[in-house]
Amino acid sequence: MDAVYVPLPNNLHVEWTLKALKAGKHVLCEKPIAMQASDFDALEAGAKEAGKLCAEAYMIVHHPQFIRARELVRSGAIGKLVHVDTVFSYNNAGDVTNIRNKADMGGGGLRDIGVYTFGAARFVSGAEPVSVPYAKVRYGNGVDVFAQVAADFPEFTYSAIVSIRMQPRQEITFHGDKGLLRLTCPFNANLHDLAELVLENDGQRVVTERWPAANHYVLQVENFGASATTGAAYPCPLAFSRGTQVMMDMVFEAGGPA
Amino acid sequence: MDAVYVPLPNNLHVEWTLKALKAGKHVLCEKPIAMQASDFDALEAGAKEAGKLCAEAYMIVHHPQFIRARELVRSGAIGKLVHVDTVFSYNNAGDVTNIRNKADMGGGGLRDIGVYTFGAARFVSGAEPVSVPYAKVRYGNGVDVFAQVAADFPEFTYSAIVSIRMQPRQEITFHGDKGLLRLTCPFNANLHDLAELVLENDGQRVVTERWPAANHYVLQVENFGASATTGAAYPCPLAFSRGTQVMMDMVFEAGGPA
Amino acid sequence: MDAVYVPLPNNLHVEWTLKALKAGKHVLCEKPIAMQASDFDALEAGAKEAGKLCAEAYMIVHHPQFIRARELVRSGAIGKLVHVDTVFSYNNAGDVTNIRNKADMGGGGLRDIGVYTFGAARFVSGAEPVSVPYAKVRYGNGVDVFAQVAADFPEFTYSAIVSIRMQPRQEITFHGDKGLLRLTCPFNANLHDLAELVLENDGQRVVTERWPAANHYVLQVENFGASATTGAAYPCPLAFSRGTQVMMDMVFEAGGPA
Amino acid sequence: MDAVYVPLPNNLHVEWTLKALKAGKHVLCEKPIAMQASDFDALEAGAKEAGKLCAEAYMIVHHPQFIRARELVRSGAIGKLVHVDTVFSYNNAGDVTNIRNKADMGGGGLRDIGVYTFGAARFVSGAEPVSVPYAKVRYGNGVDVFAQVAADFPEFTYSAIVSIRMQPRQEITFHGDKGLLRLTCPFNANLHDLAELVLENDGQRVVTERWPAANHYVLQVENFGASATTGAAYPCPLAFSRGTQVMMDMVFEAGGPA
Repeated sequence: MDAVYVPLPNNLHVEWTLKALKAGKHVLCEKPIAMQASDFDALEAGAKEAGKLCAEAYMIVHHPQFIRARELVRSGAIGKLVHVDTVFSYNNAGDVTNIRNKADMGGGGLRDIGVYTFGAARFVSGAEPVSVPYAKVRYGNGVDVFAQVAADFPEFTYSAIVSIRMQPRQEITFHGDKGLLRLTCPFNANLHDLAELVLENDGQRVVTERWPAANHYVLQVENFGASATTGAAYPCPLAFSRGTQVMMDMVFEAGGPA
Repeated sequence: MDAVYVPLPNNLHVEWTLKALKAGKHVLCEKPIAMQASDFDALEAGAKEAGKLCAEAYMIVHHPQFIRARELVRSGAIGKLVHVDTVFSYNNAGDVTNIRNKADMGGGGLRDIGVYTFGAARFVSGAEPVSVPYAKVRYGNGVDVFAQVAADFPEFTYSAIVSIRMQPRQEITFHGDKGLLRLTCPFNANLHDLAELVLENDGQRVVTERWPAANHYVLQVENFGASATTGAAYPCPLAFSRGTQVMMDMVFEAGGPA
Repeated sequence: MDAVYVPLPNNLHVEWTLKALKAGKHVLCEKPIAMQASDFDALEAGAKEAGKLCAEAYMIVHHPQFIRARELVRSGAIGKLVHVDTVFSYNNAGDVTNIRNKADMGGGGLRDIGVYTFGAARFVSGAEPVSVPYAKVRYGNGVDVFAQVAADFPEFTYSAIVSIRMQPRQEITFHGDKGLLRLTCPFNANLHDLAELVLENDGQRVVTERWPAANHYVLQVENFGASATTGAAYPCPLAFSRGTQVMMDMVFEAGGPA
Repeated sequence: MDAVYVPLPNNLHVEWTLKALKAGKHVLCEKPIAMQASDFDALEAGAKEAGKLCAEAYMIVHHPQFIRARELVRSGAIGKLVHVDTVFSYNNAGDVTNIRNKADMGGGGLRDIGVYTFGAARFVSGAEPVSVPYAKVRYGNGVDVFAQVAADFPEFTYSAIVSIRMQPRQEITFHGDKGLLRLTCPFNANLHDLAELVLENDGQRVVTERWPAANHYVLQVENFGASATTGAAYPCPLAFSRGTQVMMDMVFEAGGPA
């Protein structure tokens, strides 16, 4: 198997992913693989033409906690899903040379970590946002440093806080009419904190599931290798990644100009 | 000390509080003491005329966790406060005769429990909302059963979910640029869960403070009694309660008609 | 129903319980109801003669957490029970006039709180200790202030630490070959801490059960009243309390003279 | 730097460590490096003669949680240390070919994991056991599969449960007259669970310290390399390892023959 991992700045992802595909490589490219949803037309065409696997390195969906969350939410473990709320933040204010603080390299919090708050809700629910009725996006050095987002999905509502100017924090809660499912460390499992899935749907019992030994980076590479060599369906296809980018485009649009 | 506790339906609070004041009683009235901010003119006038203490039974600010949270946030323990997010929900869908499901008695989730999510942010920060740029309010039986709120305070932003059609949940987080302060059970301390204040402002240390023996209802009555008999300042004066109602009026306005 | 609650110093329990029974009262007496196991002969005879309910106020077995622990352990939820370990401590070194620091009033840590560590293991397992092969008991002011105990039950072993000269702590764990059941606050539920029952018997899932609204003192009085008036079996009969005293006598014997 | 890591069965540790030293290598040997305390005479002589670093691969003392625990306990953060209790267990009953279930290869739970429960108490307190007044050791297939241990240190007491036939569990608590220090996952940090150090020494505040990114195996190798190349003092010298073996010998002696 001949594969390339693209770790370049965000603004170079599409260009180099396409070049690598043309060179006959399978490509795993860091998130976000694109800068806007329309870029996916070229990526999908490039992958098809090359007959190679092309995917966004979006490790979180390879973690058993997300696979389990999806299973629980879709099977009705929390009743009807009413609202999803999520936060992802860290503070790199002191690191102005960081690529994430550079507008011309595709920096900013939404592309860096907001991508997880959007995709996580989509992955677990299987639904796509209908609209983003409210987004307050604040900019610093030309990159978005804070975003407060309200989105409407067909059957539930969504809130997110994404920031690269706040104390590190990460969580996502799927809040139903009859239950609650929380991931205590959804995005950097076992680095930021122990990743636990907590299910409350009974006044008395709380079920916590944990995978202390799971490493989503390892699982991602294993899954990528398996799909590239056997042709098995990859858990995070371009169609999924496009949906996250569609939502991000909606958020930027709702947030107004920098 | 001659005092009255008013536990009537919300729509009767103003009327009977005024009657009790006129009868020469100190009055402690269940929250929300009013139906709109303008009601406070009559309440304040009535209390002044009677020379009696008149207050809203808003027990949460008597709990040591809120006094401590206020002290920590204002002293800079989390750096600059950037965002407050809070949730309060329970599910009484099956209880249609409940007063909280009756529009003509001042029912609905915002008046019943939203009042805590608004006042808690105001009490801890000492600030007042400038605007409510977004509120999605859903109605059932004529009462609000779900609200998603985004508010702007002068120096921070605010998000809340308030619902009487969702799995029980309550939490509030004060999220700063250099720290995080959470109350794990802010509104029904030690009934819903153990009330803990958790402070993270160091990559390594988390400080948890707990008051398992504190009972905010008892503290409220003690404080009320002390203020009524000695004239000492009451921790939750009408001016504070009015501010919460002002915010609620803004939310209803932003949410649009039922 | 005519009943008496005996809250006297430990050394007076038997005498006044018998007097109250003779006066035709149902009697609920604070733990330990006796000073040695042989006292139970008189207590049982007295209750029988009076035709009244006589019981030790041993509130913990009325709490749903212990009823649930018993059910889980006996149903094999942790496989075969291999070992029980428990701790109960607080520090009253500074309070020398406290009755618990007075030898002639039946003071000492074992009678005050050791009684819970012994009875809890017996209640949940339904088994009685065969021997106490090791007990280190330290005395201060003539009362036991620290005890380290190793006991053998027919099918499992037992360790306890009981002290009135150490930082407050309370916990009990039932450790099986295939599972673990912990009570995080077994003895002063919701005063010392939130009482949670935590079951681990699967590498991945941890089930926590909680009863934040349960009050074992209230449940005890309700159960006592129900048994006294209807003749229903009382959850904590004298035969059970005698067994705890038998174990305490074994511990004092193994620990040697003061 | 020329170094050897000895991962052989326990009964071969001394022989091959000595051979490697003679061959001029620095040696890091898996725990327990010896089978009885007297073996350390040869090990220390061998290391001295070779002029090389020889140490037991005892990773836990390289973890910041143990360095911090030592600092806190010795600085009086829990008042006077009164008792240490610890548990380490897992269940390999179904794996009879496992080297840990083979007597002739130095198997058994005490050598495999008991070594951590003994050394952890010694490392943090800096004290050595005076006696082991009680040890119940049960054997299976000729190896110890369960041990309940009571030990006396000069100023505190000690209890341990060590088993390779019980549900996985690991914890250690340093219990003082004025405080409590717990390590929630002392021995397999971040594999078994998130490693947290919890300090309670105030009725209200609990301080938790965490090092989610620390890896004691990496730190061990770094420390070994640094000491081997620079001659800096190694955090876990043979003299320390000998003390743990002395305690183990006392436990086997107290426990009686297999």
